[in-house]
Amino acid sequence: MRRRRSVRFASLSPRTTSSSNAVSELEINVKYLAISAHPDDLEILCAGTLRLLVERGDTVTMSNIARGDAGSFTHTPNEIAAIRAAEGASGASLIGADYIAGSISDGRVNAADEGQRELVVDLIRRVAPDVIITHAPNDYMPDHNEVSKLVFDAAFTASLPNYITEHHAHGFVPVIYYMDTMAGVEFLPTEYVDISDTIDAKRAAFTEHQSQLTWLLDHDGVDMLEQITTVARFRGLQSGVHMAEGFTVCRTWLRTPAARLLP
Amino acid sequence: MRRRRSVRFASLSPRTTSSSNAVSELEINVKYLAISAHPDDLEILCAGTLRLLVERGDTVTMSNIARGDAGSFTHTPNEIAAIRAAEGASGASLIGADYIAGSISDGRVNAADEGQRELVVDLIRRVAPDVIITHAPNDYMPDHNEVSKLVFDAAFTASLPNYITEHHAHGFVPVIYYMDTMAGVEFLPTEYVDISDTIDAKRAAFTEHQSQLTWLLDHDGVDMLEQITTVARFRGLQSGVHMAEGFTVCRTWLRTPAARLLP
Amino acid sequence: MRRRRSVRFASLSPRTTSSSNAVSELEINVKYLAISAHPDDLEILCAGTLRLLVERGDTVTMSNIARGDAGSFTHTPNEIAAIRAAEGASGASLIGADYIAGSISDGRVNAADEGQRELVVDLIRRVAPDVIITHAPNDYMPDHNEVSKLVFDAAFTASLPNYITEHHAHGFVPVIYYMDTMAGVEFLPTEYVDISDTIDAKRAAFTEHQSQLTWLLDHDGVDMLEQITTVARFRGLQSGVHMAEGFTVCRTWLRTPAARLLP
Amino acid sequence: MRRRRSVRFASLSPRTTSSSNAVSELEINVKYLAISAHPDDLEILCAGTLRLLVERGDTVTMSNIARGDAGSFTHTPNEIAAIRAAEGASGASLIGADYIAGSISDGRVNAADEGQRELVVDLIRRVAPDVIITHAPNDYMPDHNEVSKLVFDAAFTASLPNYITEHHAHGFVPVIYYMDTMAGVEFLPTEYVDISDTIDAKRAAFTEHQSQLTWLLDHDGVDMLEQITTVARFRGLQSGVHMAEGFTVCRTWLRTPAARLLP
Amino acid sequence: MRRRRSVRFASLSPRTTSSSNAVSELEINVKYLAISAHPDDLEILCAGTLRLLVERGDTVTMSNIARGDAGSFTHTPNEIAAIRAAEGASGASLIGADYIAGSISDGRVNAADEGQRELVVDLIRRVAPDVIITHAPNDYMPDHNEVSKLVFDAAFTASLPNYITEHHAHGFVPVIYYMDTMAGVEFLPTEYVDISDTIDAKRAAFTEHQSQLTWLLDHDGVDMLEQITTVARFRGLQSGVHMAEGFTVCRTWLRTPAARLLP
Amino acid sequence: MRRRRSVRFASLSPRTTSSSNAVSELEINVKYLAISAHPDDLEILCAGTLRLLVERGDTVTMSNIARGDAGSFTHTPNEIAAIRAAEGASGASLIGADYIAGSISDGRVNAADEGQRELVVDLIRRVAPDVIITHAPNDYMPDHNEVSKLVFDAAFTASLPNYITEHHAHGFVPVIYYMDTMAGVEFLPTEYVDISDTIDAKRAAFTEHQSQLTWLLDHDGVDMLEQITTVARFRGLQSGVHMAEGFTVCRTWLRTPAARLLP
Repeated sequence: MRRRRSVRFASLSPRTTSSSNAVSELEINVKYLAISAHPDDLEILCAGTLRLLVERGDTVTMSNIARGDAGSFTHTPNEIAAIRAAEGASGASLIGADYIAGSISDGRVNAADEGQRELVVDLIRRVAPDVIITHAPNDYMPDHNEVSKLVFDAAFTASLPNYITEHHAHGFVPVIYYMDTMAGVEFLPTEYVDISDTIDAKRAAFTEHQSQLTWLLDHDGVDMLEQITTVARFRGLQSGVHMAEGFTVCRTWLRTPAARLLP
Repeated sequence: MRRRRSVRFASLSPRTTSSSNAVSELEINVKYLAISAHPDDLEILCAGTLRLLVERGDTVTMSNIARGDAGSFTHTPNEIAAIRAAEGASGASLIGADYIAGSISDGRVNAADEGQRELVVDLIRRVAPDVIITHAPNDYMPDHNEVSKLVFDAAFTASLPNYITEHHAHGFVPVIYYMDTMAGVEFLPTEYVDISDTIDAKRAAFTEHQSQLTWLLDHDGVDMLEQITTVARFRGLQSGVHMAEGFTVCRTWLRTPAARLLP
Repeated sequence: MRRRRSVRFASLSPRTTSSSNAVSELEINVKYLAISAHPDDLEILCAGTLRLLVERGDTVTMSNIARGDAGSFTHTPNEIAAIRAAEGASGASLIGADYIAGSISDGRVNAADEGQRELVVDLIRRVAPDVIITHAPNDYMPDHNEVSKLVFDAAFTASLPNYITEHHAHGFVPVIYYMDTMAGVEFLPTEYVDISDTIDAKRAAFTEHQSQLTWLLDHDGVDMLEQITTVARFRGLQSGVHMAEGFTVCRTWLRTPAARLLP
Repeated sequence: MRRRRSVRFASLSPRTTSSSNAVSELEINVKYLAISAHPDDLEILCAGTLRLLVERGDTVTMSNIARGDAGSFTHTPNEIAAIRAAEGASGASLIGADYIAGSISDGRVNAADEGQRELVVDLIRRVAPDVIITHAPNDYMPDHNEVSKLVFDAAFTASLPNYITEHHAHGFVPVIYYMDTMAGVEFLPTEYVDISDTIDAKRAAFTEHQSQLTWLLDHDGVDMLEQITTVARFRGLQSGVHMAEGFTVCRTWLRTPAARLLP
Repeated sequence: MRRRRSVRFASLSPRTTSSSNAVSELEINVKYLAISAHPDDLEILCAGTLRLLVERGDTVTMSNIARGDAGSFTHTPNEIAAIRAAEGASGASLIGADYIAGSISDGRVNAADEGQRELVVDLIRRVAPDVIITHAPNDYMPDHNEVSKLVFDAAFTASLPNYITEHHAHGFVPVIYYMDTMAGVEFLPTEYVDISDTIDAKRAAFTEHQSQLTWLLDHDGVDMLEQITTVARFRGLQSGVHMAEGFTVCRTWLRTPAARLLP
Repeated sequence: MRRRRSVRFASLSPRTTSSSNAVSELEINVKYLAISAHPDDLEILCAGTLRLLVERGDTVTMSNIARGDAGSFTHTPNEIAAIRAAEGASGASLIGADYIAGSISDGRVNAADEGQRELVVDLIRRVAPDVIITHAPNDYMPDHNEVSKLVFDAAFTASLPNYITEHHAHGFVPVIYYMDTMAGVEFLPTEYVDISDTIDAKRAAFTEHQSQLTWLLDHDGVDMLEQITTVARFRGLQSGVHMAEGFTVCRTWLRTPAARLLP
């Protein structure tokens, strides 16, 4: 039977504080929360890995902080935001993940905004993940980088009972993995995941974001399906497999795992 | 005849999207926008390069975000801000550049302030540059570093039509070059520009900032004209020329050029 | 007789501007201001060094920016904040340092908040230190990292006469040393201080923070007295002494010293 | 039954070249070869991990390149080398590993020496490992660093059939993990192994090196058993477990794994 | 007419020492010498750039240090070396470059070997290049890395008249560019060259290395033509063009150019 | 009376092993050994600091490994070597240091050569320094970099009694400081020394190297006296003094000091 790893890193729950090990060998489910800036970022940057997690029995929630309301030359912000929330739900459904849509306007994500800090704390408290996957701190546009900082900050703050928001405090500080940057610029992965078996699911999930196929071509001059394939193949060449996604783990006190929590 | 490089990186304009090349060989003008914190920073850190750009026929706009209103022991903020705006205009005039003065109080530049974000987006939209030159992210004082972040963020956001400000969206994401830090501390240039022919223009342009000659001596204990010369000579020694300025290019997706856009 | 080093780096005061040296050999007192996020951080990260400074005759002020009001599962924020302010005063008293308590709620420290910027400027202006010791920019939780940025920014801004707050401008830009991160994660010290003679004082000072002995065990699963000893011994092994604390100096223009200002 | 990971990275063997995956899920044994400079280095730097590998059913060979013949103030080189070879065998025996003694004189390890290159190629060809564990390239003394380079070079060269030595070419290029440096100086682990359950075995294995307990105290002024414990506890604090060892993986083409090959 | 840049960096020749500029604007030919370990490395790593240089009128010499005699499971060393020398000449011919074959056995390249040092000094003295292109110092196998060090060292030594070899001293220290690593592992380019127009020439040149198409598949499990295309496309995605090659420049005194010397 | 610091880091001598402190407070002399590649390197890179050490009462030995026999277009190797040995002695005399000339031919320094390893071990054993100052590992030409590695390696090996050379083993592993690179390329100092009071002595000492004033101008196109002054002034600007030299300390186990050993 499949062996499953339980992440209870610095956990407060009775069943794990009795052990000094971060990882027990029980067959219990691990909860992953992937948080991106916009509705299609997770499909581009980590959906192959998310699909593997789902396939091995873990629980995955995909979420984004921004509404995606600037990703259009033709639609109004509200129109494109609604379209993209639906696309995000469809993409997550193909992966087998839950989906939580974002509410902040594109270009307005701001890690210093107290309301946004609380919003991300509540997202984390609501899902109560063992592991979070989010943007690297140095990606190509501000919403990505602000989400990275929001998540780093909120992942700790969410564990403080006296920091009052809608949901109860999360019981521990989850581990954070950073996804590759767009086109891998200035990113040297320290962990690779073999997504040869899930590259098709990743491509299919991205294809649900029909509105972005045109936008990315018009705004950025790129064919994103082709880019997804090239980047996955490049990361695969680097790590000796057909297709791969690259990550780094966030290393700080209370977060650095003594186990690999990626597939 | 002089060959000129046109930067239309990820451009939306019809004339360039037909080509996959970032650089065409047409004899067309390139627009550079230099954005610093205070009125004299560009003279100190990149005016030799700016003068070379003007001399080869490119368009250069010099701007600063802060008013320079703290740069005095004797004047009131409004007095010194007015003096420094005039000095900035004079310096730019000697370089042959347009000039746009700043409006934020010294020490109050804040990359998380939504109003300042919009202000810099509008500055970029108004000038619509191909290339931006600004402060390195790790310079010696907060206004410099906040400007660096404001510019990085705004240079992308300015291209989003649904991010509404006074001016229309800029057609593409411009390339960003980071200037040397003050006295070159913790800065390793990856590109050098030979300013042997424009060091005099650079010194002359800085000399227009008469109010700062005294202030820098009193507040920081430095003779800035001497520092300008020493740093230019040091960067020259490193790169095998008489006088040089050092830069790094901002490398992210949609911004990393496959051509040198400095002289 | 004990020789004492005077730090008047880029100082405006008459007695030191006459010399080009950053360090004179006079027997005068040096003022150190240590600024952490929470009441117990300084004991954990630099109290051995602070005690050495006190013992050699320098003046040391210990301060924290946050109230410590989230550090409890049982007390209300106001209760635990009051308890921790008293603990902070006790710890500082054992070290022989002055103490200034913080006022911001835990998890709410925010380097982009204009009020907090002014608060830290005033803290620095009030103490008028030669040297500041604070958190590294990349520690494990947001309050630490925000304090690091607040201090970097304010240490410069505090020297601007036209930046008006309650206190007068500080006469120069103080040198900043960054403390080790918690458990030393992702931190490579460039300076070590031998605290073999003050490890007991450090442990005693931390023990004054009784409320945290339980909290850290419950929230983070750690016995902090044991961690303090292990980290000090590890830094000692690295630097050839029994017990040590590790630091880096903040290197920017106007701050990089040509002398060691740690014991 | 225990699941086992087979590393056949770029393997030439028929059973694995048919798959594009680096890791298959078969219950087969993995071969680890640990190569240090001197007889006691592996006990100090990775024996806790080696013991875990043995316990989960993998095959482990411990080896050293140098004879250890300089590690004494009292014995002749030949005497101390014989003593240390016996100590190395005893230590490996406690871990449950095979042992291969070294033949180069201490201080004479030289990655540029063609004979030593061939010697390490033959060591690798003889053991034919899936994974090699060796010194980081920047440790404290030349034998360690030369071994690191010898192993990096030989691990590739061993796979070339036309590079003729005593043994046949190894079928593929094994993955390399670098151990922590002595006292962890200038080393930031990217992977941690929880050795809480094998710290006693590690200490016991080191204790077999009786000749070094005195030597290290006299030559280096250190109590190595105490150092082993402090470093393991420090790495444990960093990674949320009681005791840990730190590693980085060597990332190059044909060597970078898309799976974790440490316990 | 096409403008051409003459690199006479620290040159000894009368025509350039009179100028402090590293780069004059004369329409004169620039000499590039590309030096790899094995006969096919240049096609894999920089042939698109070399073809661009040829097309714009510069002189290019392709060379390798090793004979390529280990690149076979079936041929004897002498057989495969002869085959590969012919393949190297054919590949260079397609690029439009001169070709100089290597003489060292594969796996035996050794930057510490005095004879090999002199061999590379003579190669440089014979070609007398303005610019050298070679392997990055941290590539995947020892021959690559040793070549990188040999070239760095020899490029300086070749300029010393009293270092006697077969050829006269070279007149100056040439600029060095480092090519991408294999599969781009641990390499962050600082300069990109748009090879969209020469990717076909690059692929054609590599195809001349027929013996290696099979070897690389058998030994390393890779389809190198596919890898070439993926890497070029990935570097293109990063730099906003269709196909690109990535480089860094070697930055030391006497070598760091104040101009871009790549196409 | 002047306080003097005694460095007995990991010392074997009875008077210091009784203390756990690396630095005692006795008024005893500290021995510095500066080791460069060629006769004029120390004057260029650290003579201001050496002079300060002499002035405060420490013992300084200046040495070089290479003969300087390639530093001429006109003299034979033996002629120029003799000239330069005399120049080296004169320069050292002005500084107040002992002088030991080198014996290896220029361009032939080789850290892998067993004879050269022993030569440097014997140099260190003969002088028995507390502190060594040498080239950074990444300077502009091979002799510098090979010396850096020779010194790093030999500084440890010299302490091994069973590594037999002409002199007895040194009693401990000395601390190593790395000097700035030529023109400061790719070098970020972590320690600065204020040489405002000794810049004239430094310039005078370099002027003793008359043969090199012409050679450096002819071979490298540089006026070295001017370069010395520019670099010292630049390092001074960075560290808030008039003239400075920059250094880093070599950080490894047994070498990393918990005290500053530079003036």
